[in-house]
Amino acid sequence: MKSYLEMTKDELTTELALERAILADWEAKNLTLDLTRGKPSQAQLDLSSKMLGVISDRGDCFSETGLDCRNYGILDGLPETKKLFAEFLGGVPEENIMVLGNSSLNAMYDTVVRCMLFGVAGGHEPWVRQGRIKFLCPCPGYDRHFAICRTLGIEMIPIRMTPEGPDMDEVYNYACSDPSVKGIWCVPKFSNPEGITYSDRVVEQFAALKPAAVDFRIFWDNAYAVHELYDEEVKLANVFDYALQYGTQDNFFYFASTSKISFPGSGLAIMVASEKNLEQIKPILATQTIGYDKINQMRHVKFFKDADGVRAHMKAHAALIRPKFEAVEQTFDKYLDGLGIARWTHPLGGYFISMYVYPGTAKRVYQLCRSVGVNLTQAGATYPYGRDPEDSNLRIAPTFPELSEIKQATKILCTCTKIAAAEKLLEKM
Amino acid sequence: MKSYLEMTKDELTTELALERAILADWEAKNLTLDLTRGKPSQAQLDLSSKMLGVISDRGDCFSETGLDCRNYGILDGLPETKKLFAEFLGGVPEENIMVLGNSSLNAMYDTVVRCMLFGVAGGHEPWVRQGRIKFLCPCPGYDRHFAICRTLGIEMIPIRMTPEGPDMDEVYNYACSDPSVKGIWCVPKFSNPEGITYSDRVVEQFAALKPAAVDFRIFWDNAYAVHELYDEEVKLANVFDYALQYGTQDNFFYFASTSKISFPGSGLAIMVASEKNLEQIKPILATQTIGYDKINQMRHVKFFKDADGVRAHMKAHAALIRPKFEAVEQTFDKYLDGLGIARWTHPLGGYFISMYVYPGTAKRVYQLCRSVGVNLTQAGATYPYGRDPEDSNLRIAPTFPELSEIKQATKILCTCTKIAAAEKLLEKM
Repeated sequence: MKSYLEMTKDELTTELALERAILADWEAKNLTLDLTRGKPSQAQLDLSSKMLGVISDRGDCFSETGLDCRNYGILDGLPETKKLFAEFLGGVPEENIMVLGNSSLNAMYDTVVRCMLFGVAGGHEPWVRQGRIKFLCPCPGYDRHFAICRTLGIEMIPIRMTPEGPDMDEVYNYACSDPSVKGIWCVPKFSNPEGITYSDRVVEQFAALKPAAVDFRIFWDNAYAVHELYDEEVKLANVFDYALQYGTQDNFFYFASTSKISFPGSGLAIMVASEKNLEQIKPILATQTIGYDKINQMRHVKFFKDADGVRAHMKAHAALIRPKFEAVEQTFDKYLDGLGIARWTHPLGGYFISMYVYPGTAKRVYQLCRSVGVNLTQAGATYPYGRDPEDSNLRIAPTFPELSEIKQATKILCTCTKIAAAEKLLEKM
Repeated sequence: MKSYLEMTKDELTTELALERAILADWEAKNLTLDLTRGKPSQAQLDLSSKMLGVISDRGDCFSETGLDCRNYGILDGLPETKKLFAEFLGGVPEENIMVLGNSSLNAMYDTVVRCMLFGVAGGHEPWVRQGRIKFLCPCPGYDRHFAICRTLGIEMIPIRMTPEGPDMDEVYNYACSDPSVKGIWCVPKFSNPEGITYSDRVVEQFAALKPAAVDFRIFWDNAYAVHELYDEEVKLANVFDYALQYGTQDNFFYFASTSKISFPGSGLAIMVASEKNLEQIKPILATQTIGYDKINQMRHVKFFKDADGVRAHMKAHAALIRPKFEAVEQTFDKYLDGLGIARWTHPLGGYFISMYVYPGTAKRVYQLCRSVGVNLTQAGATYPYGRDPEDSNLRIAPTFPELSEIKQATKILCTCTKIAAAEKLLEKM
């Protein structure tokens, strides 16, 4: 195919008319297709059906130590649940895990809020009393991380993503010079939406970081720790190993969940933190709640049994969603390759494909798609304040819809990408 | 029995020696008995055993409207779960309910924290920016309410309890004159630990209250809404009816949970608030989490079916715990009645008996009990800052232990009560 960038005005005009006609055909079909959120499909959820029944009577409710999971007791999670997480997360220190509620997002929100009201461990001033504070936001990134900052009035500084993680020069520049920079959001494996896994070098640089603020924290959201699309494991270095080496364990708040392993909303979330951090957090947490749902913790332990159980389960997930990712990429290849107006990521895991349309057209592509019943994540959502400086990035979430719907939606997305690019190029001529 | 207050020094000395000998016998038995926390017994938890199995496959996971409870979606709870709560709480407006996580304590903590960081609805200054703020604390009361204030640095003002609720003259005095008074903790039915149910007059006075602070809120923790010990229902007026009458709906944050209906830790918590309050809260909540455990919400709906289901279930609870409450009262009657050194409540519901030992001896009674293996809730715990001005109140939680253990523990408690009183009276002679 000829690149749009090399087309004459006439060629582009013809192309635009052609694609608009195709779109009109789609419009007539009154479609409703949804590529917005990273949700598992029903077939994926069915993989965990047997978990629903593993606890069916009182006898199933007693822990290894004889604790009655149906009653009050234990703030920070059953030992066997901690063990399961420690195993499948590969080396996260078991004794530093807290098994919390059903949502790692909630755990992260609560953690920022705790810092706001109580400061971090060591008796530092609460963030709320330090005037304007800032977080570093590698982007494109996870919109709900940014929403936490926005809601709490924390200024966000965008950080460029590279193929091996956040641009660490930028991170060091800000974090090591400005004591009002208090944190950074990281999705270190199969990042949302780029699908990037941080290189060992980047992980080590995070561990080696000596921030200007004594109360700086790295929010390490390992949301896709075991979410490989292919058989080959993508290795993420264990940040705690490096942190131990550099003596910076206190800088890290680590999060993970089973939301996309078992059930979103009915899974388990964990937080991992250093002894010093836990010593500060637990008494506050004990004021907030008596404890979390231990029956559901037991349900997970009984269903998965061990790390191998989790890994086998995730292979079954991959088998269901890999064809969907591949369908998106194949459709992009077929309709957009060589046009010079779009590029996209080739993730080996996670829940998203990140697409870059012609600069200045992401919002237009989003609107065009919407006009024919294809819902995408709002253009700009992957950037702090919803502001994509290039107006170029779109996040594609292919897991939830049926394969046929994904193919159709992606074709329409290609058409809209072409229309928006042609319009933009013609404007400039 | 002769009152201790009328005894001569010799009589008291004899009595003291006698009771000390009894205690020494108990000590030799190396007992471990626990009357500390309001926990259901295993037999009570067994009443909900069938709930564990009501959701055993995918087919059980779809709501009335076809929503897949296993996946993301719905921030504030399934409609059928709201309906169930609205029914059994008697007139709480269904559309104003949010079904939250597993813990109403957590919902209350989060609500205070939201007020600290965002202020209340209407654009008022966050509490955290208003200097020293205060809460009214009817007491004896629930220690975990007080812990929230203490942890968040909110000054606590004790309010006297009367047989029909908090002393409303005191409440009005503080709330209507001091704009730094921002809230009050209420357990309006079978209060913890007094077992008092607020009279209609008191409920109406709360609704009629015009606080000095525009951002004052009443934390209405209806923890024991259906927790009658006897067949006869104890009626608590619906505060929302009165609030509507006085136009003060915005003053109330209402909480309830199934922690002592189904499973502590694996139950459901709700919050009810006015439209105006919900309008402020929901967007913040949407930043905090994507949603709560809807499978567990469905589990509760399928098991209880309706308000009648809840009520029948609570009668079975009552049948199990009523004899325990009666055993405590009978033991008190037998060993303490007429001695003039102790009184106690006669609750018709809830989880506690509130005992008043001879002034200045509650801590001593607590220690004496502890020295022979009987654990009570810490003396003073039922007061702000753990300071019982009379050093007199003890909270007895008779639900968890076996009946035989309760009888034994209460006998020991009577012995310790007598010893401490005799010691104190002798001191004064």
